[in-house]
Amino acid sequence: MRKNLRELTLFMPSASALKKSADPIIAETMIDIGEKARSAAKILARVNTETKNAALLAAALAIEEQSDMILKANTEDATEAKNAGLSEAMIDRMLLNEKKVAALAGALRDIVALPDPVGRELWETTRPNGLRINRVSTPLGVIGMIYESRPNVTADAGALALIAGNAVILRGGSECVRSNRAIHAALQAGLRAANLPVDAITLVPTQDRAAVGYMLANMAEYIDVIIPRGGKSLVGRVQSEARVPVLAHLEGICHTYIDGAADLKKAIDITVNAKLRRTGVCGATETLLIDAKAEQTHLVPILEALTAGGCEIRGDAAVCAAYPQAKPATEEDWRTEYLDKIIAVRLVDGADAAIEHIESYGSGHTECVVTENDATAEHFLRSVNSAIVTVNASTQFADGGEFGMGAEIGIATGRIHARGPVGLEQLTTFKYQVRGNGQTRPL
Amino acid sequence: MRKNLRELTLFMPSASALKKSADPIIAETMIDIGEKARSAAKILARVNTETKNAALLAAALAIEEQSDMILKANTEDATEAKNAGLSEAMIDRMLLNEKKVAALAGALRDIVALPDPVGRELWETTRPNGLRINRVSTPLGVIGMIYESRPNVTADAGALALIAGNAVILRGGSECVRSNRAIHAALQAGLRAANLPVDAITLVPTQDRAAVGYMLANMAEYIDVIIPRGGKSLVGRVQSEARVPVLAHLEGICHTYIDGAADLKKAIDITVNAKLRRTGVCGATETLLIDAKAEQTHLVPILEALTAGGCEIRGDAAVCAAYPQAKPATEEDWRTEYLDKIIAVRLVDGADAAIEHIESYGSGHTECVVTENDATAEHFLRSVNSAIVTVNASTQFADGGEFGMGAEIGIATGRIHARGPVGLEQLTTFKYQVRGNGQTRPL
Repeated sequence: MRKNLRELTLFMPSASALKKSADPIIAETMIDIGEKARSAAKILARVNTETKNAALLAAALAIEEQSDMILKANTEDATEAKNAGLSEAMIDRMLLNEKKVAALAGALRDIVALPDPVGRELWETTRPNGLRINRVSTPLGVIGMIYESRPNVTADAGALALIAGNAVILRGGSECVRSNRAIHAALQAGLRAANLPVDAITLVPTQDRAAVGYMLANMAEYIDVIIPRGGKSLVGRVQSEARVPVLAHLEGICHTYIDGAADLKKAIDITVNAKLRRTGVCGATETLLIDAKAEQTHLVPILEALTAGGCEIRGDAAVCAAYPQAKPATEEDWRTEYLDKIIAVRLVDGADAAIEHIESYGSGHTECVVTENDATAEHFLRSVNSAIVTVNASTQFADGGEFGMGAEIGIATGRIHARGPVGLEQLTTFKYQVRGNGQTRPL
Repeated sequence: MRKNLRELTLFMPSASALKKSADPIIAETMIDIGEKARSAAKILARVNTETKNAALLAAALAIEEQSDMILKANTEDATEAKNAGLSEAMIDRMLLNEKKVAALAGALRDIVALPDPVGRELWETTRPNGLRINRVSTPLGVIGMIYESRPNVTADAGALALIAGNAVILRGGSECVRSNRAIHAALQAGLRAANLPVDAITLVPTQDRAAVGYMLANMAEYIDVIIPRGGKSLVGRVQSEARVPVLAHLEGICHTYIDGAADLKKAIDITVNAKLRRTGVCGATETLLIDAKAEQTHLVPILEALTAGGCEIRGDAAVCAAYPQAKPATEEDWRTEYLDKIIAVRLVDGADAAIEHIESYGSGHTECVVTENDATAEHFLRSVNSAIVTVNASTQFADGGEFGMGAEIGIATGRIHARGPVGLEQLTTFKYQVRGNGQTRPL
C-alpha cells in the first residue's frame, strides 16, 4: 500500500446511483469507450501468456524511450498544479523524475515475472457418471479504474489488468492529465507491438467530472468491476454511486492490542512501527489497545517511545492518568483514521474487550495482537473478523508485496470475492468446465 | 436446481434502492431482528463443527416429531391458497406430505455429512522474514434469504447458513406462512438443544411487504449478503432494490450448440434431455444452435425427437424451411427463458457464430457444445464466458449436487465471489492470518 492512498472493498452501490440524464456528448464518448473495451476484453480473454508479456515488455521499453516526453508532460502538470494552488504534499506525490520513470518500466517487468493468473485449475473432480468437472480462473472482463494523483497508477493498473486478461478503462485525476496521457501512449505502443487491441487499455479522454458519474451510473453493461484509488472523498463517491461491484476500502482504522502477556520489546517495536513507519498508509495503526494487566509494565514505555517518535497521544481517562502528556480522547477519536502522527490509546480489560472494541469501531482492515500466550493469539486470530489479523507483527505488513503475492492494486475490506490485498489473482474470476461423452441427467 | 426457481448472481443494487421512509413499527421489528442476528453471527463464527451438527440433528428429529403440526399448518396454508385462487401449479409446489416432511429431516442429516466449510486453509506461505501467512475460510456473517412457495427452503437455507457459521434472516412467501413457522420452530428447537442462540435462524414475523423493502434498503449494517429464491419478479425486485451484495441469477437462457462434428445419437439424447428432462429448471436449454454443416444430417432427427417429446419448435428461416412443423422465431425468442416445452432453434455458421450468439443473447448461466472434435470443444470451453460450460453433457447438469458439491442454495451468474452452484463453500469468505515473532516492516 502506498502513502495516502486508501483502497478497495467490495462495496455496495446506493440510492444516489440514479440513472443520470447524461450529457449526450459524454454519453456518446463513454459508450464508444465501453463498447471498444468490451470487444478488446473478448480478445484478451483468449490471448496467451507470451503475448501479454510481450506487450508489457514493449511498453516498458516505450516508457524508457519516451522518458523525456513523460517528464515534460509531468513538469507541465506540476506547474499548472502549483498555479492552481495545490498543496505541496499533493504536488510531491504527482511529481516524477528520471529514477521514478525508470521504476515505472521496472514495475512492468516485475509484473511479467509473475505467474499468469488466468487458466489456473482451482478445483477438479470426476463424477461417478464419468463427467470431468473443473473450475478454472478466467478474467473479470472490463475493469473501471478511477484514481487521482500518482501517475504510476496508470502504468500499474494498466499492466495488472492486462496480465489478468482484462480490458481496463482508466480515469485519472485532472491534475495529472498530461502525465497520464504520456504514460498511456507508451502502454498502447506496447499493445500495438504485441498485436493486441489498443482499446485493451483506454484512458478516458475528457476531464469532465460527468464522465466519472457516467462510468459509475450508466456503464454496468460495459464495466464488470470498479476500483477506486485515492482519498476518502473519491472512494466514498464511487461507493455511493457505482452500480457495479466496487473493490475498495474506505478507511483503515487499524488496531494494535498489547496483551498482558506481551513481550515488552516486541510491544514497543511493533507499536512504533505500526504507527510511525509511514503514517499515511492504510495499514497504519490508528488505535492502541492496552490490556489493563499490562498497565503497570507496558503502558508508559510504549507511550514514551511513541512520544519520542513525535507522535501525539490521545488517551482515555486511565491512560491520561498514567501518562500525563496524553490529551484526553473523545468518542470521535476511536472512529478516526488520522493518517498522521496521532494515536488514540485505550485501556481494555483483556483480549475479549479488545475484540469488542475492534468490532465496534474498526473498519475491518488489519488488526494486531502482541502476546506470548499462544491461546490468546489463536483466540484473537479466530475471533477478529478483519481482512488481515496479525500476531506479533506490525499492521504495516498489510501489503500484497509483503504477502508474497506480487504487485497489488490495493486492499479490499469487503467480504465478497476480494478481501485483503488485491493482486493479479483477485483480478480474475472462474468458470466451471464440464467434459462428458454424452451424459444426460436422469430424472 | 429445483423446478421453477431461479437463483443467484452477485448483483448490483440500483437506483430505486432509495432509503425508504419506513413504517416505524416495521423498522423497529427489523432492526431488532438485525441486531439479534448480528449477535448470533458473532457466536456462530466461533462454534465448532460438532455443536453445529448437533443443532441440525436435533432439528431433524424435531421436524420428525412435529410432523403432524407441520402438515396441519401446511394444509391450512393450502386451503387459504385455494380460496385465494392461486394456480394449481403453485399450490402443488407448496404442498407437503409425510414423505416430503421426512425428506426435510433427511436433507438436514445430509448437510451434517458434508465437511465443515469454515476454517479451511485456502492458501499459506512463509515469508523470508519468518512471517507465516495463511488464508482461512470464515463465515460471511448474516445472510438475508427472501423466497416464495416451497417451504423446504426454510429448512435448507436455515441449515446451510448455520453449517457455514452464518446467522440467517428468512423471509418466506405469505402463501406458506404457517408451514414456514412450523418448520422454523423445529429449527429453533434444534438450536436450543445445542445451546446455540435461537436468533441464528430468524423468520421475519410479519408478512407486510414493507418488511422486504426494509431488508433490501435499510439493513446493510445487519445483513452481509442477500439470496433471493423464487420467480423472476421476486429476483428482479431484490436485484433492483438491494444495497448489499446479492447472490442470484435472474434468468437461465441456456444454449446447446450442435457442432458439425457432433455424434448424432449424443446430439439427440443431450438436446432432448437438456430441453425436456424438466422444463422449469434454470439449467434447461432454451435455444438450440445447429452448425450449418450439420443441417443435412442432424437437424431433422433432433427436431423430430423434440417434437416427439411434445416440444414446440420456433426456428429461423433456414430451420423453418428444413422442418416445416417449426413456427417462425422472432428476435424476442432468442431472449426468452420459456421454462416450458418450447425451444428456439437457429442455424449458425460454426462454433464462432454460436459463441457470438451466446454472447449476444445468453444470460451467462450454462451452455453446451456437442462435438467429437477436441479442438472445437476446447475452443468452446475457453471462449464461452458463462458460469458453466459443458462438452457432450446436458445443460441440466447445472446443479451443486451433480457437481459433487453437496447441497446448493442456487446458481449464481455474477462474476464476483460465487459463480455457478452456490453451496456451503460459497456461503463463506476468508481472512488472512499473519503469525510473527516481533517483525516490523522496514522503511
